[in-house]
Amino acid sequence: MTGTDFLQLSPAAAPVRGLTGWLADAIRAAIMDGRLRAGTPLPATRLLAGDLGVSRGVIVEAYQRLADEGLVSARPGTGTRVLGVPRPVSGEAEAPPPGPLLVPPGWRERAQIDLSPGVPDLSGFPRAAWIRAERAVLEQASVTELGYGDPRGSLSLRTELAGWLARTRGLRAQPGDIIVVTGVAQALALLARVLRAQGLEEIAVEDPGSRGARDDLAYWGLRPVPVPVDEHGMDVGQLARSRARAALLTPAHQFPTGVVLAPQRRRDLLDWAAAADGLIVEDDYDAEFRYDRAPVPALHASAPDLVAYAGSTSKTLAPGMRLGWLIPPARLRAELTEAKYASDLGSPALPQLVLARLIASGELEQHIRLVRKRQRSRRDALLRALREHLPQARVQGVAAGLHLLITFPGLDACDAGYDADLAEAILRTGVLVQPLSWHRQRPGVPGFVLGYAAHTPDRLHEAARRIARGMP
Amino acid sequence: MTGTDFLQLSPAAAPVRGLTGWLADAIRAAIMDGRLRAGTPLPATRLLAGDLGVSRGVIVEAYQRLADEGLVSARPGTGTRVLGVPRPVSGEAEAPPPGPLLVPPGWRERAQIDLSPGVPDLSGFPRAAWIRAERAVLEQASVTELGYGDPRGSLSLRTELAGWLARTRGLRAQPGDIIVVTGVAQALALLARVLRAQGLEEIAVEDPGSRGARDDLAYWGLRPVPVPVDEHGMDVGQLARSRARAALLTPAHQFPTGVVLAPQRRRDLLDWAAAADGLIVEDDYDAEFRYDRAPVPALHASAPDLVAYAGSTSKTLAPGMRLGWLIPPARLRAELTEAKYASDLGSPALPQLVLARLIASGELEQHIRLVRKRQRSRRDALLRALREHLPQARVQGVAAGLHLLITFPGLDACDAGYDADLAEAILRTGVLVQPLSWHRQRPGVPGFVLGYAAHTPDRLHEAARRIARGMP
Repeated sequence: MTGTDFLQLSPAAAPVRGLTGWLADAIRAAIMDGRLRAGTPLPATRLLAGDLGVSRGVIVEAYQRLADEGLVSARPGTGTRVLGVPRPVSGEAEAPPPGPLLVPPGWRERAQIDLSPGVPDLSGFPRAAWIRAERAVLEQASVTELGYGDPRGSLSLRTELAGWLARTRGLRAQPGDIIVVTGVAQALALLARVLRAQGLEEIAVEDPGSRGARDDLAYWGLRPVPVPVDEHGMDVGQLARSRARAALLTPAHQFPTGVVLAPQRRRDLLDWAAAADGLIVEDDYDAEFRYDRAPVPALHASAPDLVAYAGSTSKTLAPGMRLGWLIPPARLRAELTEAKYASDLGSPALPQLVLARLIASGELEQHIRLVRKRQRSRRDALLRALREHLPQARVQGVAAGLHLLITFPGLDACDAGYDADLAEAILRTGVLVQPLSWHRQRPGVPGFVLGYAAHTPDRLHEAARRIARGMP
Repeated sequence: MTGTDFLQLSPAAAPVRGLTGWLADAIRAAIMDGRLRAGTPLPATRLLAGDLGVSRGVIVEAYQRLADEGLVSARPGTGTRVLGVPRPVSGEAEAPPPGPLLVPPGWRERAQIDLSPGVPDLSGFPRAAWIRAERAVLEQASVTELGYGDPRGSLSLRTELAGWLARTRGLRAQPGDIIVVTGVAQALALLARVLRAQGLEEIAVEDPGSRGARDDLAYWGLRPVPVPVDEHGMDVGQLARSRARAALLTPAHQFPTGVVLAPQRRRDLLDWAAAADGLIVEDDYDAEFRYDRAPVPALHASAPDLVAYAGSTSKTLAPGMRLGWLIPPARLRAELTEAKYASDLGSPALPQLVLARLIASGELEQHIRLVRKRQRSRRDALLRALREHLPQARVQGVAAGLHLLITFPGLDACDAGYDADLAEAILRTGVLVQPLSWHRQRPGVPGFVLGYAAHTPDRLHEAARRIARGMP
């Protein structure tokens, strides 16, 4: 606890006499007003004596005085630590954060089984491979790589990503085309900033579609214009009739319906963008997980000048990584790089270098293969359980991803928030499901989005049982 | 290379006959158009056969055909890899990024000794302690900690930071008061966003002051109003006469002059903020490094309701960490948390948990103590070298930090960009110095900002020798 201005004690301010009392007073005051908390170690006597330029005896005696008062305790080997009533972490810190939340306050706490979509099986995080790669990175990283870097991200990661996205998603991107971001949310924030500066005020979004993406765009000043999604994906005819000149889509696996943008719609969409000087924002959020259908290359592969492609490791590794990429058309590259620089100078270096190694070594690939197998069996378990307990539900979007959608066509006529009421009733059974209406801007058939990736087959079965119990 | 849609090959699209040719064609096309680069491993035959639902013999034969064409090579143990002319990483990728740069393009490449300020001794990064802590974090982290977390950051880091900042900087903050950010740049971006939304259009900044901070604020729409800095810090009288209702300062160690905000100025500044309903933004960028003077507690410690405090690990660990904190007045907390959420949902989890451990274990402290000792000897070496080679220079700001300032009072009358011309002449000797005018908005005495932390005494001596050679 020295070498860093312990309590801002200044040797110059110390009295000529009464050094022990001066020091004991300062430490006592810090304990009393909470700056030094229970459990905090005091500086080693030798070090503090050196810092303050006083004899070690002064420090020892001051500590002894505080020990006599019951404020600190000296334990052999562990040094002197602050005692006293342990201050609980303030209630404020434990309170949910302020700001916008999709899930109402308290819901998560009440859920024994949380089926919120978008969270992978975090217990499967490749801890051993990650730490191995990070050790190698720290042994080999050049000093420059830990400094203020290229705002676009580390060249080694951008090089590996270019190859990875070419192999797995058909993209033809050079490392210089890629901007490493802290996830798709940041990609959208940067795009919104730059499009807004160019005078755009609206962006078409899928309806139903990701509520988080919609809120994020709106925060940064782009009004999200809902365009309906049917079994072929976004209705491009309606998009063309709108005034929007940018559109956000999830073509490979629409969120939350799970449909794939149909071939004719893909062509229509690209035609629209070419004719209207429009921008397609492709959120490729869970393309790695595909079970029963042919792989669909990314839209970006067909028209890199019309498409800004965004992806992340949130579904393959963990959302907490905050590691993603944005591959914009060339005309937006400079402005987006500037926006990234002005936002945070660039993404953290170490995780980028580790991910580059995991791609190069094939370990990311191996991990995804393993997880895919596990997800598929979980999906199958949930499907079986739904057939058993909720035979009236229509199940959609099962061929890929980490979630599926169930709707209740029989309840069509009910009002918009009806599924939210149902979700609240289901929460009483201990299961959190997201009502489809949370992800809608316009009314439609009620339903629930069910994320299955984070739960074992047994728990999924139990969840379906409880959902049925909570239904009217 | 499987499990992730290798080349988006679809078993359904495979012909009934001629499977080998179909597969070889697809891989050849991908090699030719650059999607598969030299060195890329092809999927193991067994795995690809399983994915495509064909016999392994088909894959083996297709690979053999490509090997015969000289496109791939099978090496025992390492599998089949793509050959062919290695594609150089595109020139574009190596080019400097677009966007705003303080240092002109090409300068860094020409510098044998780069004295840019703000970069610590990265060779001293505590690699062993970091990797040890990260292993422990990965072994113990709960699944929740890797998920979508609290946008304010991990509770364990905020708890440790509250204690750390109390001990070392006198702050009295609860964990719930802290927002973990990706560095001071992000803290400023978030503040600019929120202040702008409240109708503020201007922010007072120190002149000279950090060019990076000024540009960042301007990008986000806050006009930086220069307020002169003298030997007591920012001229608070001039601040009070301006229309600005927010002010960014570096009170503990002004950048780049190195002066400490004088006690009377501190009081005046707090009075101004209280009277004008103003906000003080305290950039505590290098408070950990202090050599010959009494420690100064942070301004925030005196008036948490008037001061937004920002700091980071850029100077103590490495800029590439992108790990910092913002402690705003309570009235701005909710809006700043919302802005953080809309920017990136929250900072990456792993580095936060690792830093929390390094604080709790005392290893961060130990590291700073070590580095401080090394910095001091480097500073002393540079001072000696400057006395020897540049006796005409006035040296300032030596009592703390990672840089010092030299000015040339004799050259007072020269025009504003004169030191930039000098820096260009010095660059021809292989030394990069930042001219003081880069960090000024209004003309003033010419000078150079010299960062010494990243260089050994020998190199600092050599740098001073060359600077003298480059001077007129």
